[in-house]
Amino acid sequence: MSFLRHCGVLKITAVSSASALWPAGPWHRATVHPFARVCLSCSPSLPYRAFSESQGLRDSLAAEMENGTPKAEKILTLESMNQNVRKLEYAVRGPIVTRAMELEKELQQGVKKPFTEVIRANIGDAHAMGQKPLTFLRQVTALCLYPEMLNDNKFPEDSKQKARRILQACSGQSSGAYSASQGIEVIRQDVAKFIERRDGGIPSNPDNIYLTTGASDGIVTIIKLLIAGQGKSRTGIMIPIPQYPLYSAAIAELDAVQVNYYLDEENFWALNIKELRQSLHEARKHCNPKVLCIINPGNPTGQVQSRKCIEDVIRFAAEENLFLMADEVYQDNVYAKDCAFHSFKKVLFEMGPKYSSTVELASFHSVSKGFMGECGFRGGYMEVINMDPVVKQQLTKLVSVRLCSPVPGQAMMGVIVNPPQPGDPSYNQFNSEKLAVLNNLAEKAQMTEKIFGQSPGIYCNPVQGAMYSFPRIEIPPKAVQEAKAQGLTPDMLFCIKLLEETGICVVPGSGFGQREGTYHFRMTILPPTEKLKTLLQKLTQFHEKFVKEYS
Amino acid sequence: MSFLRHCGVLKITAVSSASALWPAGPWHRATVHPFARVCLSCSPSLPYRAFSESQGLRDSLAAEMENGTPKAEKILTLESMNQNVRKLEYAVRGPIVTRAMELEKELQQGVKKPFTEVIRANIGDAHAMGQKPLTFLRQVTALCLYPEMLNDNKFPEDSKQKARRILQACSGQSSGAYSASQGIEVIRQDVAKFIERRDGGIPSNPDNIYLTTGASDGIVTIIKLLIAGQGKSRTGIMIPIPQYPLYSAAIAELDAVQVNYYLDEENFWALNIKELRQSLHEARKHCNPKVLCIINPGNPTGQVQSRKCIEDVIRFAAEENLFLMADEVYQDNVYAKDCAFHSFKKVLFEMGPKYSSTVELASFHSVSKGFMGECGFRGGYMEVINMDPVVKQQLTKLVSVRLCSPVPGQAMMGVIVNPPQPGDPSYNQFNSEKLAVLNNLAEKAQMTEKIFGQSPGIYCNPVQGAMYSFPRIEIPPKAVQEAKAQGLTPDMLFCIKLLEETGICVVPGSGFGQREGTYHFRMTILPPTEKLKTLLQKLTQFHEKFVKEYS
Repeated sequence: MSFLRHCGVLKITAVSSASALWPAGPWHRATVHPFARVCLSCSPSLPYRAFSESQGLRDSLAAEMENGTPKAEKILTLESMNQNVRKLEYAVRGPIVTRAMELEKELQQGVKKPFTEVIRANIGDAHAMGQKPLTFLRQVTALCLYPEMLNDNKFPEDSKQKARRILQACSGQSSGAYSASQGIEVIRQDVAKFIERRDGGIPSNPDNIYLTTGASDGIVTIIKLLIAGQGKSRTGIMIPIPQYPLYSAAIAELDAVQVNYYLDEENFWALNIKELRQSLHEARKHCNPKVLCIINPGNPTGQVQSRKCIEDVIRFAAEENLFLMADEVYQDNVYAKDCAFHSFKKVLFEMGPKYSSTVELASFHSVSKGFMGECGFRGGYMEVINMDPVVKQQLTKLVSVRLCSPVPGQAMMGVIVNPPQPGDPSYNQFNSEKLAVLNNLAEKAQMTEKIFGQSPGIYCNPVQGAMYSFPRIEIPPKAVQEAKAQGLTPDMLFCIKLLEETGICVVPGSGFGQREGTYHFRMTILPPTEKLKTLLQKLTQFHEKFVKEYS
Repeated sequence: MSFLRHCGVLKITAVSSASALWPAGPWHRATVHPFARVCLSCSPSLPYRAFSESQGLRDSLAAEMENGTPKAEKILTLESMNQNVRKLEYAVRGPIVTRAMELEKELQQGVKKPFTEVIRANIGDAHAMGQKPLTFLRQVTALCLYPEMLNDNKFPEDSKQKARRILQACSGQSSGAYSASQGIEVIRQDVAKFIERRDGGIPSNPDNIYLTTGASDGIVTIIKLLIAGQGKSRTGIMIPIPQYPLYSAAIAELDAVQVNYYLDEENFWALNIKELRQSLHEARKHCNPKVLCIINPGNPTGQVQSRKCIEDVIRFAAEENLFLMADEVYQDNVYAKDCAFHSFKKVLFEMGPKYSSTVELASFHSVSKGFMGECGFRGGYMEVINMDPVVKQQLTKLVSVRLCSPVPGQAMMGVIVNPPQPGDPSYNQFNSEKLAVLNNLAEKAQMTEKIFGQSPGIYCNPVQGAMYSFPRIEIPPKAVQEAKAQGLTPDMLFCIKLLEETGICVVPGSGFGQREGTYHFRMTILPPTEKLKTLLQKLTQFHEKFVKEYS
């Protein structure tokens, strides 16, 4: 039967929540694990090690049971499919989140659990955690969709002006028309002006701006342009560890070489040039490293880079001939008093023409983070600096194949970069809504630091920026052994048990990368203050219990 | 200087519209071609053959002139970049459209032209051509963006109900939250019900539905899953010729093998099984063909496949072990009285379990075409049938890396598949707006057929469906020679001259593929009736003149 092909040495046995499907016969029913739903007497290690495949196995088996007979060989199988896709992982929406969704459904169906609610602290999704959208952002974008409301006096005049400006730039004055592939021209102009204001007047050229389907789209597109070569000349892409797993996933999918450089946990997750240099030299032995990715403010680490550090990185990139990718989607999310956001573009230009006219840089922004949290719109932009014009044309050609990024997302980006100004009817409301979000995040960042700081066995750097905490946790040797026996990483074991016992969904550090022998998890600071407080307390209590249990 | 690297044997010389930039010195100024802007005495063939690169050359050169000194070698160059990206082409937004946009700007600046307006008939972009969005679609999507209006009595009750239903399914009840990667669950349920209604009750499972960022996204994602192997075992993907160039572009980018099968122009562009078989057998000598792509109704060819033809294709796919991809984005656009749309899914299931339980199929739909034309929203869905559950899980993992498709586009898809029903407050208006669009398109399809039918030297199949006409045109041997001398395809020469003299922008047939020695162009039938009439008349007159000029 084809599922044997998938499971290798294992006998897949029973399913707890859908037992009716399974024949008694040769299947073991005794020791079914509630999470992975395979028989632990046959296979103690499969469930967590390869949950996604075991989940598939179950489906596969279920399908065969339904039909009574094994299926003929498929054309598209795990073996025949794109193996780069197979190997990529994206922990932020990985098996643990799938399980969280199952638990939510079980709760809805009245299944008893040791908790009444699943709290998804796995993903930076502000609105899902109850943050309200900013009124002005939604007024303008709604007007762009339904211009009949342009005559409605419920909408402030400045929201109408902005909507008219965007609509006039749309073909046929409709947000339903394709835009230019690079994005709507007036919005690109507004993005350029926004960057100029942000960077103290350093010029930005709208021709260098591309509106994207979220920052992810821009990042993957630039990586796509950069990959080439085979064997030792394959493109190497330097990424921080811990990293946001979009990078590792894109690198795996595109069959480039992932070159890790470790952030310095003992030093607030700072980027260390010596580490960069070592990593680069090591990588040059087996690939052609030509890209250096920076995430600032850091995801999942929450650090904010100092101006000096950015200068050092730029100097390093110039010396070593590296293309710079600066992921700056958390530029509005800086909470620590002694930190400030400095864009790579600004620092590059302030370092003078030796750098500003040579270093190739792509930087990325998004509507999903900051104070807006408009993830669902999938809006973003990238700015490319010093890109060879011939290559830029290839970039434009590449993005034209997908026609354009979503116009509602472009409009959202357009409002964010061109917000109400003092004196405009919406200025006060916009500003107070914006500050309320940012102040609340700052408060929650501090609370997270404080509660983790008081918890033995948990070591947590301050959340200087972004939306995440990435604490290191003590995991006793016995737990490490148990995890090993199950083919799991120890932090995955911790997160699974946390989820099953408390309903709290966080992502194991192994999904982002961490130094060997250290264990972390990433959690967002987005739940409402009181809920976050309870979550932190439950989590630290659970950790205490976990450590005791395995001591 | 680095531009010499790009231009190979050529000396690039002068630029007409920006001459101030160029030093006199060694540059020729005499015979500058107005379109490609390189010196024809140095390089008669470059301008059209590789317009995009010559454009890049110009920019590159301009950049060097500005700085006074040649630039240092870039990291990302035409040579070092991803060569698969470099080789892909997407004619629908290719160099001729870039030139059309330039002409529009020149007209705005008051430059005199032999025409007063550029008409972009290059792309299926209904709203850009003046089609008005359907009121109900925009009411619901605007309400999803700005729920404050849910209390406004200007909105009909059914629009509010639908918006509430979608919002309740969004995390945090906000369209700004990420959705599940596969798409919002209630919308996937509505898509499944829509498919069931469309296909006479054949069941559709919401778990098989993925909401996508336009159909393009779904198509590329499935191709991405299917590619594997090296050399003779590389995945071959069968596509119709003429094809929609998304397919060739995706195949080039992903380094798969494009396997052409020719549609039968003499027989209304029908799909011929004998041709399929021959093409497949030929392809098996050098690759591993495992996917068969169908576009029905056809783009750019406008044919609508008969039920029998679809059955034959399914039988062929089953016999030959091919994964079927059915691009059905024009399913609402059928105009010919003797034609009807049959979905591959429906025909597959009506052929009985031998086929319906084995043939692997992915079919695609979009919010961009049909009567809605909401291209800017980038919404769509795909349904996968008989996909190995383990692979489906890999598919879900793959799409999760980009988090989700845009929620406004998902909402748009949600309204389209769940429109007002008889008795609902918006039913009459929705239906009359929908019919007005479809009847108008049918009228324009007929007019196009009629005017081309009366034009000597132009041979045009009836536009049975979709939004395009793809006429074959006579190009005299002398014009073919001139094109050859310029390194151009003859239909590109025709389209360039048409654009420069009349402002009409259509896409050369070579961008879609055509039998050797035949020449075509694709134009949309979307301009308003009177404008389309003028366009057709001007175009046929220009062709007559063109033929005379080269006789």
